[in-house]
Amino acid sequence: MNSKNGSDMQAFFEPGAVAAIGSLREVTGTAYWMIKNMRHFGFSGPIYPINPNPSDYVEVFGSKVYSSVNEIPEPIDLALVITPPSTVPEIVEQCTRKGVKAVIVMSEGFAESGEEGAELQRQLVAIARRSGIRIMGPNTFGVVNSANGLTTIPPYTDQERIYRGGVAFCSQTGSIGPHQAPLEDWAYPISKMCDIGNKCDVDEVDILNYLAGDPETKVVAMHLEDVRNGPRFMDAARRLVARKPLVILKAGWSEAGARASASHTGSLMGSDRIYDAALKQVGVIRVDTWQELWEVPKTLVYQPLPAGNRFAIVTFTGGQGVMAADAAASAGLTMAEFSSDTVRKLSSVFPRLGKNPVDVGPAMSDSRSQSSSNPFYAVEQATSIVLHDANVDCATITFSCGQQLVPMYPMIVDMFDRSTQDVSKAVNIWLYGTSLPAMEEMARQLQSRGLPAYFDLDMAIKALGAAAYYSKVKSEAV
Amino acid sequence: MNSKNGSDMQAFFEPGAVAAIGSLREVTGTAYWMIKNMRHFGFSGPIYPINPNPSDYVEVFGSKVYSSVNEIPEPIDLALVITPPSTVPEIVEQCTRKGVKAVIVMSEGFAESGEEGAELQRQLVAIARRSGIRIMGPNTFGVVNSANGLTTIPPYTDQERIYRGGVAFCSQTGSIGPHQAPLEDWAYPISKMCDIGNKCDVDEVDILNYLAGDPETKVVAMHLEDVRNGPRFMDAARRLVARKPLVILKAGWSEAGARASASHTGSLMGSDRIYDAALKQVGVIRVDTWQELWEVPKTLVYQPLPAGNRFAIVTFTGGQGVMAADAAASAGLTMAEFSSDTVRKLSSVFPRLGKNPVDVGPAMSDSRSQSSSNPFYAVEQATSIVLHDANVDCATITFSCGQQLVPMYPMIVDMFDRSTQDVSKAVNIWLYGTSLPAMEEMARQLQSRGLPAYFDLDMAIKALGAAAYYSKVKSEAV
Repeated sequence: MNSKNGSDMQAFFEPGAVAAIGSLREVTGTAYWMIKNMRHFGFSGPIYPINPNPSDYVEVFGSKVYSSVNEIPEPIDLALVITPPSTVPEIVEQCTRKGVKAVIVMSEGFAESGEEGAELQRQLVAIARRSGIRIMGPNTFGVVNSANGLTTIPPYTDQERIYRGGVAFCSQTGSIGPHQAPLEDWAYPISKMCDIGNKCDVDEVDILNYLAGDPETKVVAMHLEDVRNGPRFMDAARRLVARKPLVILKAGWSEAGARASASHTGSLMGSDRIYDAALKQVGVIRVDTWQELWEVPKTLVYQPLPAGNRFAIVTFTGGQGVMAADAAASAGLTMAEFSSDTVRKLSSVFPRLGKNPVDVGPAMSDSRSQSSSNPFYAVEQATSIVLHDANVDCATITFSCGQQLVPMYPMIVDMFDRSTQDVSKAVNIWLYGTSLPAMEEMARQLQSRGLPAYFDLDMAIKALGAAAYYSKVKSEAV
Repeated sequence: MNSKNGSDMQAFFEPGAVAAIGSLREVTGTAYWMIKNMRHFGFSGPIYPINPNPSDYVEVFGSKVYSSVNEIPEPIDLALVITPPSTVPEIVEQCTRKGVKAVIVMSEGFAESGEEGAELQRQLVAIARRSGIRIMGPNTFGVVNSANGLTTIPPYTDQERIYRGGVAFCSQTGSIGPHQAPLEDWAYPISKMCDIGNKCDVDEVDILNYLAGDPETKVVAMHLEDVRNGPRFMDAARRLVARKPLVILKAGWSEAGARASASHTGSLMGSDRIYDAALKQVGVIRVDTWQELWEVPKTLVYQPLPAGNRFAIVTFTGGQGVMAADAAASAGLTMAEFSSDTVRKLSSVFPRLGKNPVDVGPAMSDSRSQSSSNPFYAVEQATSIVLHDANVDCATITFSCGQQLVPMYPMIVDMFDRSTQDVSKAVNIWLYGTSLPAMEEMARQLQSRGLPAYFDLDMAIKALGAAAYYSKVKSEAV
């Protein structure tokens, strides 16, 4: 059933006309919220509200309410269904008759809920097999496309916008999307999101095939509990990895996790050792936690791939440098040995600056190495010198944020931009400081200039380790 | 030299009169800022400003400026010194003549900076040995005591207050304190902080001995790069662990980290395998990252110790439950098997609620299990039922935050307070959501009621694992 090249996935992410089928009541209606969210995030295509009792409504968002898809006067690419489970098979049948290409079934109450729901889900699969219509879900929040504003989520969300960027985020859980993650506060660079739910038809292989060819997507982050078909998954992952990095969180790796997964999805999982070997074989970046699944892609999407794993760090204290060196060892990076030219240049900025880690703390508190126009002169110089060393492949630069610095942020961000320019190396910034809002504001400003920002030093370095790993995968594939 | 019981450490943390020796110039003077910070955070004891050129100043913060400690008309407990390195030995000599009990040498430029500085540091050690005066540093930001407002840090900080609580945070790096960490935004519960810097005299053993007997301190978090004397450290750690949990980040565990540490502290480190065995032997909770060193103590300080390692989780989605079960396996916890009574009670809240992980998502979106006065009725019921199960020792409860919920926070926090009361189990809350400010506000409100809040699911569960580990250490010691 699955598409080889993902082309029939287009209707899910780039539909022309959309039908929203379900309760359209203001404030409480789930289909009402889907429409409201899509309009809020800027989807401009036609959306047809559908409810079996159209006479309950005059109109919804200025549109006439239809009783079924068949009454809609134009072709429909995508139908969103959030109705009681027992009504769903008939509604999907109607969609097949109408020629709808794709259906997302949001409703809960299918295979995850017991035998009755499992039977309904089998009916959906049978309809898909017979007709060729593609079904995402059931038990899903659907998709997000930051390019066209398509946001099929039914719950209310308080976010103003979704930042358009290169990370596609796909999961088997509803815990993604602007209703679940602070995407706007993070300024998280999203291309597409999707929750494949119970994956009765559309599964991870369809998504991988589609995203491999999606020009908006530079990096794929995927949460998986199980894989339906190992060889087909390996094949799709290998083809995607040849074009862009694939970061996977394989949840349910522990015995307890596997049991929990079986009980909520109804599917059985293979041994984690087999998964691990398979993911390594195709060059997947495997992460261990939900937090890492969000954080690691940021460096991959914003920064060039490092040529190797030689790591440098610019810190504000010696103690931070020691922790960074430990983190580098954990992340598979080695501490770069600076060229004699770099040592000489660093020493001319400040006497004791020649070593990696580069602790600019003493230089910053010493008047000899300060510039009246830029109190962060030592950071800028050290960053630029280190990044121009041929022995350095990647680097983390430290910055300490505070409310009193916020007015200077544009100048500081310019400085980071300048000192990291003209070098094809992977760089990210570790932020700490005295104020969470000040740290968050700095992260947004840095990321708007393509500089990934982290609040956790070890996470920043882990992300560089992932970039170095993927770079090696690519070079070995050549 | 070191104190057996830590009693001569009192002068560092609980001094009567303090002398601040260094530049007193407004805005740029480091001793000026130390005084300003101490007054800002509420230290009410006498502070005498001292500068070798007192005629440069009329008065500082309403006090006369003295040219040396010897001119001060009353006894001084603690002297804070931030002057050029070459002047420090003579100033400390003056302190010994004055009968000052404790000196914190903030200045950089000692053993960490080369042979000249190392010689000056040896002079300080000789003075301490000869006179019995205790010296913290050099190369330190000194101490914080949230109970009396003593805050010896020279840099500017934008924080209004330091929350008084039970965590003592001690490090060998300056990256702690209200000038470096968002203590106020975190509502982090601090008893004492100290940076022991180059530890020419006062070292980790002194601090452990003092904190073991400090009634304000319930948990000790310690960052260490090296240990001066293994057997004495083991002895002090063992005695502290018998009374309260000790969380240690041993930085420089990797070869690269050890090299970086040797280069900035001038000290050599032992093999990590030896450290690891020694820390385990005395029941230390060893953490791997800076982030963990801050996060793990929060559960230890706010919550009772769990009787065992049987873990339960209440989540908003099934996928979260799977990830939680994986995290529990990593943290040394087992998934609790609910009693038949618990299964029955949970099932009466909602048909499919009887299993651990307890996914309340479906119940929350189902009108059958909703209460008109509390939309989070299912969370409250599930939490209370699970925590009353004798088979459960500890639990993480999930909550999804958003701006629209902020007005309801007092009601929600009351609910968590109610449903976790009357059970002597370790509980923490994993927060996620659509808005960072909303998550941060919820964390502050929960922690003000003794409920530790986390933004990282794995970290929350790791903290419970640490609590279960320490509980086992305690029970085996009996």
